[in-house]
Parts: sequence; C-alpha cells; structure tokens
Amino acid sequence: MPRVFYPEPLSEGELLTLEGGWGHHFARVLRVHPGEEIPIVAAGVPRSTVVTAVDPARGRVEVHVGAALPRRDPRAAIYVVQGLPKGDKMETIIQKCTEIGAAGIQVAACERSVARLSQERARGKLERWQRIAEEAASQAQRDMVPPVEYSPDWPAVEAWLRRISPHTILVCDEAETAVSLQDVVATNASRDGARWVVAIGPEGGWTEEERERWRTVGAVPISLGSRILRTETAGLVALSALLYALGDLAHSSAAKGNMT
Amino acid sequence: MPRVFYPEPLSEGELLTLEGGWGHHFARVLRVHPGEEIPIVAAGVPRSTVVTAVDPARGRVEVHVGAALPRRDPRAAIYVVQGLPKGDKMETIIQKCTEIGAAGIQVAACERSVARLSQERARGKLERWQRIAEEAASQAQRDMVPPVEYSPDWPAVEAWLRRISPHTILVCDEAETAVSLQDVVATNASRDGARWVVAIGPEGGWTEEERERWRTVGAVPISLGSRILRTETAGLVALSALLYALGDLAHSSAAKGNMT
Repeated sequence: MPRVFYPEPLSEGELLTLEGGWGHHFARVLRVHPGEEIPIVAAGVPRSTVVTAVDPARGRVEVHVGAALPRRDPRAAIYVVQGLPKGDKMETIIQKCTEIGAAGIQVAACERSVARLSQERARGKLERWQRIAEEAASQAQRDMVPPVEYSPDWPAVEAWLRRISPHTILVCDEAETAVSLQDVVATNASRDGARWVVAIGPEGGWTEEERERWRTVGAVPISLGSRILRTETAGLVALSALLYALGDLAHSSAAKGNMT
Repeated sequence: MPRVFYPEPLSEGELLTLEGGWGHHFARVLRVHPGEEIPIVAAGVPRSTVVTAVDPARGRVEVHVGAALPRRDPRAAIYVVQGLPKGDKMETIIQKCTEIGAAGIQVAACERSVARLSQERARGKLERWQRIAEEAASQAQRDMVPPVEYSPDWPAVEAWLRRISPHTILVCDEAETAVSLQDVVATNASRDGARWVVAIGPEGGWTEEERERWRTVGAVPISLGSRILRTETAGLVALSALLYALGDLAHSSAAKGNMT
C-alpha cells in the first residue's frame, strides 16, 4: 500500500477523510475496503490508519488514525547534487535516489550541462520532479518526500550548502584515483545524525573551475572505482555504498538506535 | 573512448585491422585519427593500441597493439540473478549491473513473473540483452562482457549455480528483517577471489516455494533496509553495496592486490 504524505499532524483515534488525488487513488484505483490499512505520514510522523468507509463515487476514503509506526528513513541525511544531465535522465535519477533514501536532491546547472533551463522551464521541471519524488517516496515507504531544488549557477549551490550545512561533501570525480569512499567514511562515519552531500557531475564531468569551487567549500574528491560510471548511475552507486557504510541498508528493527 | 572486445589474444607490436561494426564505429562515427588510442580487451587482457591508419570509406581502422593495461574489473565476481520483470526493465537492469561491475547476469522466470518468454522469444531477447551488456561494458571500460543467460525454470537456475559454484548466495527478500548484507559480509568477506550470487525477485517478490528452493541450495535471505525497493533498483543497490564492502569501489591503482 503506498504511503500518504499529509501536511498536518494527526493524533491516535482521529478520523480523517482522504479526498482529491489520494481519495481517488484509494477509492477508485486501488479500491480499498473497510478494514484495510493505509500508512499515512502526518507532518513527518508515520502512522498506521484503518479504512472505516469508502465512497468510490465521490473518490473519498475515511480512515481511523492509529499508532505511530517505526521510522524507515536512513539515520544519516545524504543529499545528492546532480549536474543537470541530458534528456529525461534527471527523472530516473530523482526516482531512484528517492527510493534508495536521499534526504534531498539538488539539480545543478553545470558548465558541461548540455541542457539549459530558463527560469520558467525550471519551474515546470521542478513541479514535475517533485511529483516524481513524492510518488517514489510513497512507494518506497519513506518517512519524507526529499525536496528537489534547482541551482541555475554556483552561487545558488553555495547558498544551499550554507542552508543545509553538511558535515562532509563528497565530489565524485573520475580524475581522482587515490581517495575512495572507504577512506572518507573511515574518518567521518562516527558522527551520528551526520549530513552528507554527494555531488555528481553532468555527462562531461567537472571542469577545472568547478573542481576549484568545490575545493573552496571544503569538498573531498573521491573515486568510485576503476570503471567509468554514467552520470545517471554514479549517484545511485554512491548513495547505496554510503548508506551501506553507515549501517543504513539494514532493516530498522535490526539496526541499533533507529526505533524512535 | 569505448573499449573493443576482441575474441583472440594479441601481442605487443602486432598490427590489427578493425572492420565490421567496430571499424565503422571508430572510422565513421567517432572519426578517430592516427595517433589516437583505442583500448582493446583481447581474450580477456586489456591492452592499449594506437591508431596507425583510418579508412572511413571502407569503415576500417588499423591499430598498433601496445602493452597490457591494469585490470579494472572487481576482484570479487558478483553474479546477479534477476527475476524476469515487466516490460523493458530488464534492459536497464542489464545495462546498469554491467556498468557497476556484475560478473554475469542470470534472468530467471519466476512464479510471480508477469512476462513469459517462449523459447524463440527468449533467444531473441538474449541476443538483445547480450548486445546491451557488451555496449555497457565497453563504455564502462570493463575487462569483460558479463554473460547474460536465461533460466526458464528452477532446474535451469540450479544447473547454472552448479556451474559457477558460488561461495555465497544472497537472496534479497523484503520478508527478511533480521539479517543484513553487513552480517553476511562480516563472516564471508575474507575469501579472496570469491564468487557471490545476489538474487532479486520479480515485481511481486518470491513465493514461499521459491524461498524454500533457495534454502535448499544454501542461500542466505537478506534485508536491504527498511525502504521498499523496486525490482529494477534492488540489484543495483545490492551490487553497489557489496562491491563497496569488498573494497572494489576504490580505484584499482589505490586498491591492494588489484594490479595483476
């Protein structure tokens, strides 16, 4: 059953009516019945709910709100910066990174990005990307929808970095052959609740100027191995490996300290 | 520059003429010039070669074969068993798993696989899948093209398992909540040159009967974490995490014992 993201907090025992898109989806597409469970993340808190009434004609489902559920999201917040790639690759990247567990996705126009987005087109894209993230988060049973943002230039990336204030910034770079993800994790992994940024260049990779900019914000260039990964693959690999390294690819009921 | 996979061994100093598909690709699509380097994997040995002559009209390129190059493939052989998914998802899975570093891909018709392939259709699919693997291996600078095979039933999977004789078989299973990849790696990672199998079910997951079959061949069910991964994502995540765990997401010149 997909998870509903609901903006306001809910309390155990409350009755809630799902209308609009979600109501339609449960009443008419999934055709739920009274007694079935629908998980709802209410203002960040995942809760079980039980269907009490279904009105397919009006696309409405009434649920009885139950207890809070264990959290499923990774303890570490890993943000992905993705250099704007060609075509609709960004959609796949957002879907997969959300599913795997990214805390947020920053799409960055880079010097070697072939595509250029006007302000208006960027707005349209962002709406679509955010919808893809919400759908993927719902399917994957995430506790939150990772925000998708767009940086048209480097100052916008810098402003975003100041805002999220990451402990470690990793820049995946084919030119780097000495430092691996292991090396960085070995010296940085102990911090609980750490915020990481993993940056991936567009198809043509980073320019020297971009490398220098990343250096000025304290980023560590890393290698992901000897094979050449496509831009749409590198982020998924880095995210998976880092979540594994931080113990976040284990089931939460088996992981220590994740049952809050 | 993409890597050419050449079936026969080559020696340093030899002259080789690339014709057919590769000749066309280098002479007419990439338009190489004398002096440019083309990496060629000859009977499993990656070598640098230098273009000596180009004949665009006939789609031919002559190269001078140089020294052997350092190997780029993971030391651990990780095979992926993928329950046949819907639509053309299998193509993306083959492309991505090849790129990341799979040693081979076994597509298995499972009880919950929606698609069914007749023998003839399977032959056609396999040809296409193998071509996708070769292209991805070439782009990713792999040392080999992972063989893609198809098992129409469980006895075929079993026969394949006997043939590759893996040290460890991991079955990714949403129903498993106790054992993680970490737990398995902790007890199995020391064996160098180990052969691993990572099995992923189709969209509907494994049936109880399939779980039982995996148990009979000594497979370990593992969790990939609390989020629900789509079938086309689980393999990439498991492969990335396992390669990381085994030290194979570091550049080969930095990894110990990889320069053979």
